[in-house]
Amino acid sequence: MSFVQTVIKCRAAISWKANQAFSIEEIEVAPPQSGEVRVKIIATGICLTDASASRGKILDVKFPIILGHEAAGIVESVGEGVKSVKPGDHVITLFLPQCKKCEVCKREDANTCMEFFHGSQARGVMDDGKSRFKCKGKEIFQFMGTSTFTEYSVLKEINVAKINPKAPLEKVCLLGCGVPTGYGGSTKTAKVREGSTAAVWGLGTIGLACILGCKNAGASKIIGIDKNPMKEQIAKEFGCTDFINAGDVSKSIEEYLNKKYGMIDYTFECVGTIPTMKQAFKTAALGYGVCVLVGVSPQDEEINLSPIDFLLGRKLTGELFGSYKSVDDVPKLVEEYMEGTIPLEKFITHNLSFDEINEGFELLHNGICVRCVLNYK
Amino acid sequence: MSFVQTVIKCRAAISWKANQAFSIEEIEVAPPQSGEVRVKIIATGICLTDASASRGKILDVKFPIILGHEAAGIVESVGEGVKSVKPGDHVITLFLPQCKKCEVCKREDANTCMEFFHGSQARGVMDDGKSRFKCKGKEIFQFMGTSTFTEYSVLKEINVAKINPKAPLEKVCLLGCGVPTGYGGSTKTAKVREGSTAAVWGLGTIGLACILGCKNAGASKIIGIDKNPMKEQIAKEFGCTDFINAGDVSKSIEEYLNKKYGMIDYTFECVGTIPTMKQAFKTAALGYGVCVLVGVSPQDEEINLSPIDFLLGRKLTGELFGSYKSVDDVPKLVEEYMEGTIPLEKFITHNLSFDEINEGFELLHNGICVRCVLNYK
Ligand SMILES: NC(=O)c1ccc[n+]([C@@H]2O[C@H](COP(=O)([O-])OP(=O)(O)OC[C@H]3O[C@@H](n4cnc5c(N)ncnc54)[C@H](O)[C@@H]3O)[C@@H](O)[C@H]2O)c1
Ligand SMILES: NC(=O)c1ccc[n+]([C@@H]2O[C@H](COP(=O)([O-])OP(=O)(O)OC[C@H]3O[C@@H](n4cnc5c(N)ncnc54)[C@H](O)[C@@H]3O)[C@@H](O)[C@H]2O)c1
Ligand SMILES: [Zn+2]
Ligand SMILES: [Zn+2]
Ligand SMILES: [Zn+2]
Ligand SMILES: [Zn+2]
Repeated sequence: MSFVQTVIKCRAAISWKANQAFSIEEIEVAPPQSGEVRVKIIATGICLTDASASRGKILDVKFPIILGHEAAGIVESVGEGVKSVKPGDHVITLFLPQCKKCEVCKREDANTCMEFFHGSQARGVMDDGKSRFKCKGKEIFQFMGTSTFTEYSVLKEINVAKINPKAPLEKVCLLGCGVPTGYGGSTKTAKVREGSTAAVWGLGTIGLACILGCKNAGASKIIGIDKNPMKEQIAKEFGCTDFINAGDVSKSIEEYLNKKYGMIDYTFECVGTIPTMKQAFKTAALGYGVCVLVGVSPQDEEINLSPIDFLLGRKLTGELFGSYKSVDDVPKLVEEYMEGTIPLEKFITHNLSFDEINEGFELLHNGICVRCVLNYK
Repeated sequence: MSFVQTVIKCRAAISWKANQAFSIEEIEVAPPQSGEVRVKIIATGICLTDASASRGKILDVKFPIILGHEAAGIVESVGEGVKSVKPGDHVITLFLPQCKKCEVCKREDANTCMEFFHGSQARGVMDDGKSRFKCKGKEIFQFMGTSTFTEYSVLKEINVAKINPKAPLEKVCLLGCGVPTGYGGSTKTAKVREGSTAAVWGLGTIGLACILGCKNAGASKIIGIDKNPMKEQIAKEFGCTDFINAGDVSKSIEEYLNKKYGMIDYTFECVGTIPTMKQAFKTAALGYGVCVLVGVSPQDEEINLSPIDFLLGRKLTGELFGSYKSVDDVPKLVEEYMEGTIPLEKFITHNLSFDEINEGFELLHNGICVRCVLNYK
C-alpha cells in the first residue's frame, strides 16, 4: 500500500473559546501519520460531555478545539502500519481507546485503557505533539481522540472500531458513547440478574440505555427516577415499570424507595451529581446491593461515605463506556442493533444537518430531546 | 430428646461499666430456649473489638455485659428444635450468624446475615428480649450473639458452627473472628490471583492473616505497611516480601508505593482509620485495582473519595468475616488448619488462663502480642 500524503480541505464546527457558539469554518486536515486513520464523518450524536467541554467545564480541554465524539463514518485513508482498517471500511469513533498493549488492556476484566488518561489524546494532540487540524493558519486542538464535528477527522487506529458495512451509520453512531455506557452499565458492569429490582437515577440517553439493559437482562422491577416528570413516558417505553418524580419526594429518597420497594439489588446513578450518587449508594440493599456510578461529576468534587456500609456488604463501582473493550465490543453491539435487541431509533428524537449544530445544542436543554443526530453532507 | 431446664452456676468475667477492669464473678446461666445452645467454653481469643467494646466505643453495647466472641467449646445442652448440633459436639462461636432464611443468606455471594444487624443479638439479648445471664440478681447483657468470657454461654443455633472433634479447641478458637476475616479478605473477598502484587496496611492478626491468604493464593509481591517497625519480622514469617515502616515515609504513601512498585493489584486496609483507608484506595491500580476495607472505623466517621476514581476503574469493597458464610465455612477452615494451610499456632504469641483476662487485655498494647488465648479451667 502506498500512503498518499494529501491535505484535505473541508468544513468543521470550531469552538474558538469557551461559552461561544460553534462556528462553521473551512479547515485543513493533515494526512494520517503512522498508526492513524482519516475518516469521513457521516453522522454524529451530540452528548452532554460535548456541551460541558464547550462551556469550558472539562479541565484538560484546550481552545480552539473541534469537539464531538459519538460518530460513525468511512475510512478515507490510513497511515503506515495500520492493519485493522483500510479505506472504505465503516467505523465508529471511540473516545475510549483499546491499545491492547497496556497493563489495563491486557486484563480481561478491565477496559479503561491507559492511553485514555496518560496518552496524547488527553492533551488534545497526536503522539508527535501536534494536532492534525488547522484553521486560518492556527492549530486547532483535538478532543477525546475523536473530534467528530468536522467532515473529516484523523484518529488513531486504537480509536476506531470496524463495523458491519450494512449498518446504517446515522443510527449506529450512537454506539460511540451514550448507549453502550448505559446499556453496559446494567448488562456488563452490574450484570443484572433475572428477576431482580433495579433503580435508575437520571433518564437521559445513559439512564434510558441502562433501563433497556435491565429489561433485556430480565429485571422484574425497574424504577426510574428523574426530576423532570416529562421523562415518565419515554422511560416506560424503554422498560421502566415504575416512575418516581424526584421533586415529589419530600423526605429522603432512599427511605422512600426502601419503604415502597423493599431491598433493591441494583442502583445506577446516571445524572452526575454528588447528592444523587449518595442517594443511589444508600438505596442499594445492605448485604448485597450494587451501586454503579455512571454519571460524571465535576472533577474536584468528592463524595463522603460511611465505611461501615462497605463492611456490611453494600458495593460501589463505577464505569467508563459500559465496561466495554471498545475496539472489540462495539462491532458486537452493532450486531445486537441489527438483531433488534438494542433499538437505537428510539433514542433518536431529533435529526438535524451538520450546519444546524448550534440548534442541536439548544435541544439538549428542552427536556424532551434524548439524542439529536447531526447528518453530514 | 427431653430438655432438662437446669440453671448452671459458673464463673464469668463481667464488665460492669465502660473503662473498668473485668471482674470475675459467679453467674447463673439460664437453660437454652428454643433454637438455642448452651456451650462450655474451652478457649477464647482476645480481639480488638472486645477492647473497643470494653472502653464503651461500640454504640450498641449496653453494660453490664459479658464480652468475648472468638471461642471454641463443647455443647452442653440444646433447646427445642435445635438440629445442627447435640450435646458433646465441638463448636466455634460465630459473631456473624448464618440464619439461612433471610434475603442475604439466600444469596450465594453474600454473607452479612440480616440477623447480625436487625436481630436480637444487636440488642444484647435473645429473641424473647431477655439475656440468659444473671449475676447478683442483675441481668447481664450478651455481646455479639456470643459472650465467650464465661465458662458457659448460651448462643443461638445460628451462632455456632459444628466442627471436627479432633481439632484442638485452644487453637481453632481463632477461627471465630480474626483469622478468617483477614484470610478471607484476600482469598475470598478479593480473590487474589497468582503472580499479583498486594499491599496490606496494619499487621495485627487481621493483616497477618490477610498476608497469609495472599501468599497461599500465589501473590508474588506482598507489601506490608505498619507504623510499628517491630512488625517486620513476624510479617515476613507470614509471607510478606517487603515491609514499609509508615513512619519512614514523609511524602504521600500512595505515591511512594506506586513509584517503588508500579501498579498494585490489591490493597487491604486492616487498621481501621480513615487516613489509611484513603491511602489504600488511592494506591490500588487505576484501571483495575481492588481495595478491600477490613478495618472498622468509628461509626460516625466518613471517608471522602473522588467519584472519578471509580469511573476510571478503581474498585472499593468491604467485608465482614472474610466474606465467609459462617456456619457453612468455618468447619471447612478447621479442615484447612488440620491440613496445614492455615498455621494458627503462628498467631498465638501468648497463652493465659481465664483468670488472667485483665493481663491478656494489657498485652494487646505491647506491640508484639498477636493473639492471646485464654484457656478455661
Ligand atoms: N461513565 C461514562 O463513560 C459516561 C459516558 C458519557 C456520559 N456520562 C455521564 O452520564 C451522565 C448522564 O448523561 P446523559 O447524556 O444521559 O445526560 P442527560 O442530561 O440527558 O440526562 C440527565 C437526566 O438527569 C435528570 N436529573 C437531573 N437532576 C436530577 C436529580 N436530582 N434527580 C433525578 N434526576 C435528575 C435530568 O432531568 C435528566 O433527565 C452525565 O453525567 C454524563 O457526563 C458518563
Ligand atoms: N471486617 C471484619 O469483619 C473485622 C473483624 C474483626 C476485626 N476487624 C477490624 O480489623 C482491624 C484490625 O484488627 P487487628 O485485630 O488486626 O488490630 P491490631 O491492633 O492488632 O493491628 C492493627 C495494626 O495497625 C497498625 N497501625 C496503626 N496505625 C497505622 C498506620 N497509620 N499505618 C500503618 N499501620 C498502622 C498497628 O501498629 C497494628 O500493628 C480493626 O479495625 C478491627 O476492628 C474487622
Ligand atoms: Zn490500553
Ligand atoms: Zn459522550
Ligand atoms: Zn441470614
Ligand atoms: Zn473479633
